[in-house]
Amino acid sequence: MRYNRDEGKDDRKRRPVARHMDPYHRDRPALEDDERAEGVIEGRNAVSEALKAGRPIDKLYIAKGETDSTLAHLASRAKEAGAVVVEADRRKLDAMSVTGSHQGVVALAAVKEYVSVDEILSAAQERGETPFIIVCDEISDPHNLGAIIRTAEAAGAHGVIIPKRRSAGLTAVIEKTSAGAVEHLAVARVPNITAALTELKKAGLWIYGTASDGAKSLWETDLTGPAAIVIGSEGEGMSRLVRESCDFLVSIPMRGEVSSLNASASAAIVIYEALRQRATL
Amino acid sequence: MRYNRDEGKDDRKRRPVARHMDPYHRDRPALEDDERAEGVIEGRNAVSEALKAGRPIDKLYIAKGETDSTLAHLASRAKEAGAVVVEADRRKLDAMSVTGSHQGVVALAAVKEYVSVDEILSAAQERGETPFIIVCDEISDPHNLGAIIRTAEAAGAHGVIIPKRRSAGLTAVIEKTSAGAVEHLAVARVPNITAALTELKKAGLWIYGTASDGAKSLWETDLTGPAAIVIGSEGEGMSRLVRESCDFLVSIPMRGEVSSLNASASAAIVIYEALRQRATL
Repeated sequence: MRYNRDEGKDDRKRRPVARHMDPYHRDRPALEDDERAEGVIEGRNAVSEALKAGRPIDKLYIAKGETDSTLAHLASRAKEAGAVVVEADRRKLDAMSVTGSHQGVVALAAVKEYVSVDEILSAAQERGETPFIIVCDEISDPHNLGAIIRTAEAAGAHGVIIPKRRSAGLTAVIEKTSAGAVEHLAVARVPNITAALTELKKAGLWIYGTASDGAKSLWETDLTGPAAIVIGSEGEGMSRLVRESCDFLVSIPMRGEVSSLNASASAAIVIYEALRQRATL
Repeated sequence: MRYNRDEGKDDRKRRPVARHMDPYHRDRPALEDDERAEGVIEGRNAVSEALKAGRPIDKLYIAKGETDSTLAHLASRAKEAGAVVVEADRRKLDAMSVTGSHQGVVALAAVKEYVSVDEILSAAQERGETPFIIVCDEISDPHNLGAIIRTAEAAGAHGVIIPKRRSAGLTAVIEKTSAGAVEHLAVARVPNITAALTELKKAGLWIYGTASDGAKSLWETDLTGPAAIVIGSEGEGMSRLVRESCDFLVSIPMRGEVSSLNASASAAIVIYEALRQRATL
């Protein structure tokens, strides 16, 4: 990480040159908030014991280049238990480590078990309510995911669906950023969002996605039926395949110069417009 | 900073005992995002030159116990230029410092000049529009303030009002978290929010605050007139005096177990409900 100090007067040009490195410790990779301290389980024994105890694991990091059978065995047990397993640079594991002796393996505890999409649908049915589900397409910032879960829970949604890859998971940070809402809301983690949307369509739900070029504005769209609302990622919005899976693309009216909203703000606006229509129309 | 490791199995009980210290460097105070790197001006000469050049300063930190006349002089020049001046522990300045030689003074550059409340009102008048102003009562998290500014700008609001104390300011982090929206929206920083609300009332605006015990729900409240919408702080909501200054207390309907929303999510919901009413009713 280094600033181009010679670049002149405009501070905004002093951008980091390597965004994945920690700007305050230039030799150290930057970590997401959920890769820090709380909920980190490190070392072969600790991870093995956590798995044995059935403690839910969100993500397992294996140091790149480590090929021994113990780690391979831990990885396969973690995968079986539903964790995402990734290879990571050893320096990243060093940075995540609290004790300094991770032995090539670090797990992030999940604060909660994931459910299946089917369980979310059943919960709506049991409550005798029209299904109302939020789908988060690659929300990687745990603050955004936590805020969306909090809003979804507050609005009485039946569950949230997130993908296995390129998404924040249900780690300790989500507990905090959702202000505990994650305890009360079912979250499903699926290998493939478009497949999940197909499943929801078969169950009779309409799929709504937000897009700046949506055919109708949010306010002109009927959101009172069985609905899944897709929230696109912070940077890119919905991926192409997910976009094509939507039955309706709706636009959030914009009156200013900026062309998009923060993902959790968009989510709050769409979720509460759906709730308003359901409650008052 | 220390974890109560003996407290048992529940990870959520392993809370830091000193929240103002950096959990990864136990001898160092934790910094807010806006107290880091970008926009930090340190050392007596650099701060003096920045003031001389008329560069907007958001906040000036003076090391506690430093009483010499140079620092006192810098402090008074900064105050005159509209900056908030605070005394801080020397270790905090050490942590903010990039060069390691702050000489007892660190300034945070503002990315933009603040305007007056009157200028916000005039801007609405010039555009021939019904005033629509967002008041942030002590939003200390720069991510939340940035997201609120972004939503307010997107909804076509005429300006945002923040207090001088206990609020994030217009630092480099706000530039980023507002996705540049701060460039397009007028922001006023006032010594006293209740006094500013009185000024807005005199100008003919209605003051709306959100509160869980609000008399009417958001959806039953007419938000189409000249309006200032007050967003309460993340932890406490509106302060008592600010609450008493509101003409209307409106509640955001809640259907789940959690009892409140994230400040920027609340703001998005209320701001867009106001925009919906203005656009469609």
